[in-house]
Amino acid sequence: MSIVVQKYGGSSVADADGIKRVAQRIVNTRKQGKDVVVVVSAMGDTTDDLRDLAQQVTPLPPPRELDMLLTAGERISMALLAMAVTQLGYEAQSFTGSQAGVITDSVHGRAKIIDITPGRIEGALKTGAVAIVAGFQGVSQDTKDVTTLGRGASDTTAVALAAALGAEVCEIYTDVAGVFSADPRIVPAARKLDRVSTEEMLEMAASGAKVLHLRCVEYARRYNVPIHVRTSFDYVEGTWITPESEQDGASDVEQAIISGVAHDRSQAKITVVGVPDKVGEAARIFETLANSEVNIDMVVQNVSAASTGLTDISFTLPRDDGQGAMSTLARIQDEVGYDKLLYDDRVGKVSLIGAGMRSHPGITAKFFTALASAGVNIEMISTSEIRISVIVAEQQVDTAVRATHTAFDLDATEVEAVVYGGTGR
Amino acid sequence: MSIVVQKYGGSSVADADGIKRVAQRIVNTRKQGKDVVVVVSAMGDTTDDLRDLAQQVTPLPPPRELDMLLTAGERISMALLAMAVTQLGYEAQSFTGSQAGVITDSVHGRAKIIDITPGRIEGALKTGAVAIVAGFQGVSQDTKDVTTLGRGASDTTAVALAAALGAEVCEIYTDVAGVFSADPRIVPAARKLDRVSTEEMLEMAASGAKVLHLRCVEYARRYNVPIHVRTSFDYVEGTWITPESEQDGASDVEQAIISGVAHDRSQAKITVVGVPDKVGEAARIFETLANSEVNIDMVVQNVSAASTGLTDISFTLPRDDGQGAMSTLARIQDEVGYDKLLYDDRVGKVSLIGAGMRSHPGITAKFFTALASAGVNIEMISTSEIRISVIVAEQQVDTAVRATHTAFDLDATEVEAVVYGGTGR
Repeated sequence: MSIVVQKYGGSSVADADGIKRVAQRIVNTRKQGKDVVVVVSAMGDTTDDLRDLAQQVTPLPPPRELDMLLTAGERISMALLAMAVTQLGYEAQSFTGSQAGVITDSVHGRAKIIDITPGRIEGALKTGAVAIVAGFQGVSQDTKDVTTLGRGASDTTAVALAAALGAEVCEIYTDVAGVFSADPRIVPAARKLDRVSTEEMLEMAASGAKVLHLRCVEYARRYNVPIHVRTSFDYVEGTWITPESEQDGASDVEQAIISGVAHDRSQAKITVVGVPDKVGEAARIFETLANSEVNIDMVVQNVSAASTGLTDISFTLPRDDGQGAMSTLARIQDEVGYDKLLYDDRVGKVSLIGAGMRSHPGITAKFFTALASAGVNIEMISTSEIRISVIVAEQQVDTAVRATHTAFDLDATEVEAVVYGGTGR
Repeated sequence: MSIVVQKYGGSSVADADGIKRVAQRIVNTRKQGKDVVVVVSAMGDTTDDLRDLAQQVTPLPPPRELDMLLTAGERISMALLAMAVTQLGYEAQSFTGSQAGVITDSVHGRAKIIDITPGRIEGALKTGAVAIVAGFQGVSQDTKDVTTLGRGASDTTAVALAAALGAEVCEIYTDVAGVFSADPRIVPAARKLDRVSTEEMLEMAASGAKVLHLRCVEYARRYNVPIHVRTSFDYVEGTWITPESEQDGASDVEQAIISGVAHDRSQAKITVVGVPDKVGEAARIFETLANSEVNIDMVVQNVSAASTGLTDISFTLPRDDGQGAMSTLARIQDEVGYDKLLYDDRVGKVSLIGAGMRSHPGITAKFFTALASAGVNIEMISTSEIRISVIVAEQQVDTAVRATHTAFDLDATEVEAVVYGGTGR
């Protein structure tokens, strides 16, 4: 029997009614003759509430204990969901990350999945039961301690389980109808995409699109898991995310050049001013930052002024890492011999993504022209084979997204974006 | 290093402040050079709240899933408590029942502990950490599923762990100062007992005294674990519960004849009217009830009337089992050939407990005289070596308890009973 993995986010199971509605969906799929494995997040704001409770006890909760605490959230939602499915006359069993065989490393708070050993899940499916698995959590291979995979990582649990079980599809249920060509809160005319290639989705997730977690898409690409992003509040089709090769045959001619415009407001920019333009100085800076676990995104190095032999190096990084990176750099000022540091967290990133841009020259020019016409100043640029990203002032992000969306004819003729349920995920 | 096991109930850890106060107590004990193992219940009303949530989803939650749900409660309290101890500068690690090696049978909702394999606890103690263990829960030996031990069973977890670890004492922290000679809500002059023998405590728990769970005391008796019942809201000594042999030497002369008066309002009485007085008829009735897992307490059979050859059989049982027992008996009416069933759940049990009554005749007479003087009618009687229990009308329970307490000179000269914190446990 073919296996379907379904993942339901916190807004889909926010209360008893939501849990009953989701149970009905699960049973509908079961009735179609599928084996169903469900991955579920904590109800509504439970995870945030538990974090608040920890803060009341200590400003710096030990990571092992914080993971122990937070995993209570999925334990509650998964048990209730199993009850609701049973109430509809179908067998269901819930499993913690550990019971489901989600084996991780020991980095509490953002553990990585090392292996999936889903023996108990397969056993439950064999008896005809629906298996309901806690998202977001696993068990450390070395210490046997409970770990969490980081915010939003229930998607990753679902895709990893789908890969391990050889599922035909991993359905990600959320409170929007699918993946859109831009954030509908900024571009009301954003269009729901029927299909996106895994590669494009990866660039979108890396560029700030929040509908899917980056690691989840990476996992899907590596293990060739088809993902169907859709809403649990309606029965309409959502967005299919599949390898590019599978899409080419289908509708090569109609393939849009550009899939969408993504943006990210969580960036900061640091400029190291007056770096001696010698071999190894830039490497020294980025090596030090890497050792402090700071993730650098874009980098720009100016041509050095011949008169001084000094250059400026600018780079972007997640805003949360900003103060840490500044401290780290301050410690090596004498060693590197730079002049000063500039910090700007009022920047945002706007990215244009599309597999079609490979074979269509002139996309960059059209993008920059659109931004210039809208009066948006570009501070930094970076590109990949299927993506162009620019850093702009934070207050120009919305304008830049809208102008780009329109310039590439992405605007829908009617509003397609409906947000169901609450706002959380 | 000697080990102290401390158990804190839900009212002691009802909120962040309670958790911090308990953490301070734990650290104080650690500072005295003890290895500390803590067993903790869910915060305040968490367990009841989770039960309510289950009821919103289904009237009949599958027991396996209900156990999965309820165990989230201790997961939260134990992680927060470990954080609070860490915040005070001491190492602490929390462990689920499964991680702590609490191995049980597979009877969800009221599993029995089969074995304790506390390897991870001992490992944590060796590193100097405080081990914090979830009360009330374990893992099934056969299915590896999460189980719960039944309401109030965190005490049992604590005593079982104390036995397995060879702890010097198991301290049970609650919201009253110790074990009292009667329920202070009924007898304001109830006296705090400094010492009670394990045998007396066993009779008290079986007779409705709620301060300790019956299975916990059974465990303490079997494995010779000294228990110290005390409050977490003050540093006064509470009540020591130790084997009788250890107490005799200490204060034989001053040993009171009677330790206390217990009562139980959770009883019901069933009377089977007109049972043919033949060999095996009563056995047939009680065998059928036993097969339905109904626990019978007292039994009274009237002398049969010579004219009819029929007799009446009355017995008491937990009120919760009442309707089930009535249905079971109705099914065997033709087989047994009795006349009719009477059901009365407006009864209560009052028990007088004291190791000293073994060597003092006349206790029964004094007890019954006290009840008669107070106008209390006795419906049924049962006795053990150190206990006399009577069934009375429910509305006469308070009167009976007070009259008995006074008649045996148990009244304190000043009020000793203070209830700290909330009312829950």
